[in-house]
Amino acid sequence: MTSDPMFTTQEMDEVFSATTRVRRMVDVEAALARALGSAGVIPPAAADAIATACDAAQMDADAIMTEAVVAGTPVVPLLARLREAVGPDVRDLVHLGATSQDVIDTAAVLQMREALGLLLADLSVVGRLLAAIAQEHRNTPMAGRTLLQQALPTTFGLKAAHWLAAVTDQVERLAAAREALPLSLGGAVGTLADYGEDADRVASDMAGELGLVNDVLPWHSRRDVPAAVVADVALTVRTVGKIAGDVVLLAQTEVGEVAESPAPGKGVSSAMAHKRNPVDAVTARAAARLALGSVSVVLLAFDHEHERAAGAWQAEWAAIPDVFRYAAGAVAATRRSLDGLEVNAARMRENLAHLPGSGGVLSTARSGALVDRALARFASVSTTIDA
Amino acid sequence: MTSDPMFTTQEMDEVFSATTRVRRMVDVEAALARALGSAGVIPPAAADAIATACDAAQMDADAIMTEAVVAGTPVVPLLARLREAVGPDVRDLVHLGATSQDVIDTAAVLQMREALGLLLADLSVVGRLLAAIAQEHRNTPMAGRTLLQQALPTTFGLKAAHWLAAVTDQVERLAAAREALPLSLGGAVGTLADYGEDADRVASDMAGELGLVNDVLPWHSRRDVPAAVVADVALTVRTVGKIAGDVVLLAQTEVGEVAESPAPGKGVSSAMAHKRNPVDAVTARAAARLALGSVSVVLLAFDHEHERAAGAWQAEWAAIPDVFRYAAGAVAATRRSLDGLEVNAARMRENLAHLPGSGGVLSTARSGALVDRALARFASVSTTIDA
Amino acid sequence: MTSDPMFTTQEMDEVFSATTRVRRMVDVEAALARALGSAGVIPPAAADAIATACDAAQMDADAIMTEAVVAGTPVVPLLARLREAVGPDVRDLVHLGATSQDVIDTAAVLQMREALGLLLADLSVVGRLLAAIAQEHRNTPMAGRTLLQQALPTTFGLKAAHWLAAVTDQVERLAAAREALPLSLGGAVGTLADYGEDADRVASDMAGELGLVNDVLPWHSRRDVPAAVVADVALTVRTVGKIAGDVVLLAQTEVGEVAESPAPGKGVSSAMAHKRNPVDAVTARAAARLALGSVSVVLLAFDHEHERAAGAWQAEWAAIPDVFRYAAGAVAATRRSLDGLEVNAARMRENLAHLPGSGGVLSTARSGALVDRALARFASVSTTIDA
Amino acid sequence: MTSDPMFTTQEMDEVFSATTRVRRMVDVEAALARALGSAGVIPPAAADAIATACDAAQMDADAIMTEAVVAGTPVVPLLARLREAVGPDVRDLVHLGATSQDVIDTAAVLQMREALGLLLADLSVVGRLLAAIAQEHRNTPMAGRTLLQQALPTTFGLKAAHWLAAVTDQVERLAAAREALPLSLGGAVGTLADYGEDADRVASDMAGELGLVNDVLPWHSRRDVPAAVVADVALTVRTVGKIAGDVVLLAQTEVGEVAESPAPGKGVSSAMAHKRNPVDAVTARAAARLALGSVSVVLLAFDHEHERAAGAWQAEWAAIPDVFRYAAGAVAATRRSLDGLEVNAARMRENLAHLPGSGGVLSTARSGALVDRALARFASVSTTIDA
Repeated sequence: MTSDPMFTTQEMDEVFSATTRVRRMVDVEAALARALGSAGVIPPAAADAIATACDAAQMDADAIMTEAVVAGTPVVPLLARLREAVGPDVRDLVHLGATSQDVIDTAAVLQMREALGLLLADLSVVGRLLAAIAQEHRNTPMAGRTLLQQALPTTFGLKAAHWLAAVTDQVERLAAAREALPLSLGGAVGTLADYGEDADRVASDMAGELGLVNDVLPWHSRRDVPAAVVADVALTVRTVGKIAGDVVLLAQTEVGEVAESPAPGKGVSSAMAHKRNPVDAVTARAAARLALGSVSVVLLAFDHEHERAAGAWQAEWAAIPDVFRYAAGAVAATRRSLDGLEVNAARMRENLAHLPGSGGVLSTARSGALVDRALARFASVSTTIDA
Repeated sequence: MTSDPMFTTQEMDEVFSATTRVRRMVDVEAALARALGSAGVIPPAAADAIATACDAAQMDADAIMTEAVVAGTPVVPLLARLREAVGPDVRDLVHLGATSQDVIDTAAVLQMREALGLLLADLSVVGRLLAAIAQEHRNTPMAGRTLLQQALPTTFGLKAAHWLAAVTDQVERLAAAREALPLSLGGAVGTLADYGEDADRVASDMAGELGLVNDVLPWHSRRDVPAAVVADVALTVRTVGKIAGDVVLLAQTEVGEVAESPAPGKGVSSAMAHKRNPVDAVTARAAARLALGSVSVVLLAFDHEHERAAGAWQAEWAAIPDVFRYAAGAVAATRRSLDGLEVNAARMRENLAHLPGSGGVLSTARSGALVDRALARFASVSTTIDA
Repeated sequence: MTSDPMFTTQEMDEVFSATTRVRRMVDVEAALARALGSAGVIPPAAADAIATACDAAQMDADAIMTEAVVAGTPVVPLLARLREAVGPDVRDLVHLGATSQDVIDTAAVLQMREALGLLLADLSVVGRLLAAIAQEHRNTPMAGRTLLQQALPTTFGLKAAHWLAAVTDQVERLAAAREALPLSLGGAVGTLADYGEDADRVASDMAGELGLVNDVLPWHSRRDVPAAVVADVALTVRTVGKIAGDVVLLAQTEVGEVAESPAPGKGVSSAMAHKRNPVDAVTARAAARLALGSVSVVLLAFDHEHERAAGAWQAEWAAIPDVFRYAAGAVAATRRSLDGLEVNAARMRENLAHLPGSGGVLSTARSGALVDRALARFASVSTTIDA
Repeated sequence: MTSDPMFTTQEMDEVFSATTRVRRMVDVEAALARALGSAGVIPPAAADAIATACDAAQMDADAIMTEAVVAGTPVVPLLARLREAVGPDVRDLVHLGATSQDVIDTAAVLQMREALGLLLADLSVVGRLLAAIAQEHRNTPMAGRTLLQQALPTTFGLKAAHWLAAVTDQVERLAAAREALPLSLGGAVGTLADYGEDADRVASDMAGELGLVNDVLPWHSRRDVPAAVVADVALTVRTVGKIAGDVVLLAQTEVGEVAESPAPGKGVSSAMAHKRNPVDAVTARAAARLALGSVSVVLLAFDHEHERAAGAWQAEWAAIPDVFRYAAGAVAATRRSLDGLEVNAARMRENLAHLPGSGGVLSTARSGALVDRALARFASVSTTIDA
């Protein structure tokens, strides 16, 4: 893989590899050709020829990316190859009426769909792990802590339920984002001028081909479309980062209420044999910071000049992959941290002794009801997603 | 007002003044008392006494904020005054079962509701101004520009329609955010322990009193709740910042396609009498940058430790007001920039001469259809919001 | 004061008040007049008249800031008043050859000089407090902790010495930044065209008047000049934020190695009488986050278009004050946190029991040498600064 | 190469490859062994054996990075291989008294040294290109523009000189940063405990071996050390981003004062044959945004807990490479943009016609003096760097 495996996953790395990116751009050209054919803008045979050539294309992604440096866009070298592949008769019908941004943005949307699917899958596992903890420890008393001071008792089950409630929100959020992903098709300056009366049909058929939403208007310069997805991922990253942070705090030597699973070689120190570092939670926190830095590239910008930006858009080509790669790292590391987490209920109880008298008494009836509520909501949301 | 009037509005400044903040915190205590009364947790007479005292309270907000520095929270000095005000019989029933975070977060939610209302009102005006431009200039040809190079013709009406489509998205987004604002009530560590069986009733009644959503679980440590609102505001800020950026570019001396309204004294230079600066668009861009800086404080953080954070939460007390204040400045300046915007259709046509032959020909039928679509969607969303 | 006292200091708030800002801009006009007089560009009597009028000017800062919204700059309304004040004979000599950016940037530099002085003063106190702790606890053993796990023993003196070394670096850094602050004088587009042969003399005399550096070239569009200062402040904020973070961690109930000074009312909870929150360290962490958000507005931007930016520069007008206000809050709260800090050496020793056998043995000879080194360097740097 | 070639350079990509990283970590172990030998802490023969084994080591970097995910650090799998390589007699003397952070941070410093060298080399070329432009166009009049409005005349030579002055500052800054890079050696918790009396000698010899500064104290938890370097790079990125931004604006169709060199295939459009996009300037702006996003990960953080952080430090492992990779992309693209830049002096003169009468007259004597000053300073700084 091309990225540091510590801060991402291999699956996510592949979704955003040069090879996959080129593949998705070719898929977009194929879908466009089919839509142009079905709308009658180009002859069906030409559409077939182009789509078939696209499906069969084996392109050298690295070469395309290198040539893209000069062209300023990967679409120019990609089209040169594609037109070569389809032959002289239909070469002028390839990419007809589209612009490089249509191809790049739609391909990015297809990659984001796969990426959201990967995040959702791993996030669901995190949810299931948390649900199991919440269930198992619904009556395990522990100190609730505010400003890092013991405050009043809670249960570890309820603590996990609060984590789960946040994860559930993000599962719902990412699933909704995945459903709303739109086709990008606007032509050179967002007028769809080349298709005339057939424009709606082309856009609608192409969206159908790709399983994407056909938006009201082309969104070339309306960058809240990808930015909103990035914001959703940011909220997910924050959520797992917070859980990992709590694990690190609970695993402190002096607190000792949880420890990560003692896999061989896990969390060992180069200098101190007695240490048992919560390395997955630490990695999750690191990956979360990295993801949020890349989020800022996309989310905190607004200078998308006129009909296509001169910098802010191009930055998305790398920033969105960075966001997803690091987000995958954060979610996966949180999953590993929780998987097999050792819970020291006795230590939780001992630590409660720091609280004054009344602190020791907690009715778990009320907290159990909250736990149930979190479990029920996660179950309900999960069902929807899987369906 | 306390903030620089260049980068906010007086109305928004008041929503986040110390006085309003204290007022909203007292409102929260009143609503809690009423809910405790109606749920039978405290006697109705006590509830009335507390609520009446709250309604009548005239507190020195500056003094409370100064004492808050020592206490670490404004709730402690506020409660001291409130308990003094209600008298010895019911003083122990004030704030019963609640924690300072409940009061601070719910008050912040109430302020955000007012703040979102202000943003929505101003954003709606921006939408109406854009709709008028889109309508008036549906057949005004101009150059579409990508990477700041002329690409192909479009119309100014369609350009405005693309701006409008983005604004419409944000109107819908902020309105949805406003509807979803939840009560915060969790008690010391999010267990609602003190209310026992009555907890659901108290929360539900209190949410009803304040017109807020009663969430599934307390959200003390689930900071995606306010962060999602901040993300929505960020998308709004980006949207108006992009429009203001385009205005600045179109107003360039060498482009000259638009100019801001020539109000007396507007955009004059201290050294160059001939200049006519697009000062409102410039101010909008500045305020947008400021808002997004504050967004990053809220959105890019995840270290909300355990049941209440030791820093990240407290930073929200100032960052969320900063976000809204600067966002209001960005939206208002964009509104002023567009209000009375002078459009130089002749110059738009002249500039098109830079394009090669075919560039001059544009069927406006297709672009007109897109304009209509944007207008219809804005009208539809506006109706929903106003209703 | 105009800002929340929790996250700044009154002194810093005053440095960046509208009143002070207007005062500094008038001071700049006075210095310019004096320099124009001494260079012979305007008659000495005119220079005197202008400077005298400036010194005596009592301007309504709020009115100027309100008018600035329309003008796009506070310099226009300020000059209108100043020209009125000096009378018809010399009014055309006011602001001669300068541009609004010269006045705004030089005034900002003067405010930054005061602001750096305030930070340095408070940071020096932090240094002295740390030096005292390092001295007193040079032989107090405690656990060194990596990844929040106990690793090997260190001493609290050495821990404080590491904090002190970082603070010393920042004292040196901020002092160097203060010495390097340059005059801004470039005229409308950075050519200094109006002064002809006298340009160097005017700039040099004006810099001398104000005690500022006379840079090689005007720096209107070279924004690394203020950005470098902001970067220095960011490093300072990080440094105190790290110390405050360690205090919060050491003050955890289960660690209990330090506690903030028990001033009356300090750190009490609205719901839990037994709590003793490290509120100053928490406030420092919150203020540090706020400061760094504003840092990002200045430091992460580069779009300063041509000879004067249309947004990024204007954002500095509010962002730089925000940076300093919040930075002052972070430094002051860290100072308060350390002032009177209770150190529980017994608890430090007890906690060491978590370490395996060899952990308990530590030669303090070596760590003491490092402590001495940090103390000596701080003393040496302090002397330089005070001189 | 592993990164998108559009936004970095191959040389920089290699500096931060897994292979180079592992190589530098092994170099650090070698230098430590030599220093331990020369200081007499371990026998000279053992030192030789270890150093020789290190020099000869051919490690599978990808395998180490994969194992690092479980261990939480690449040092553990690296040491396992190194100890295997040196054989049983000296294996326990490898890494003696050091900690993984010493190895990781010192290796990162060595990589930063190479990376700064690459940035300096490319930045020097940018400077030379700008110096040539400033020289050639010292008398080429053009409009100075403020707020994107024509203000008063300047020369293109002076505009380039202002750019050059900013670049010169960064050359000086990065060169100073490179000279100040320190060795990291602290042992497990920053006490250097294992070397006893020999600690100073070991550190001093090891720093000498590697050509690094031997700092006053270990800087494990003093992260202003790397953060200051990152801040310096941020200022460099801002500087080239600003130049690239100006190129994009000057290249606008309606301005037409510059165009990037017309290399074959450069800046062509997938849909519009007449376009000539300033693709390198656009790429520079995109890479600059990406770099600054990664800067924020390092610079805006402060939560480096105790003696070694649980997340913020590990994030640096990827963020610092990201900063440098993207910074290299920004500098290289700016260089390509300026290399062969076509300047349309006639168009500059024509555009000046927008200015009222007096605008046309400009004494270039004064601006020429400023140009000379910028040239002289760049020449002087360049000499120092090369020396």
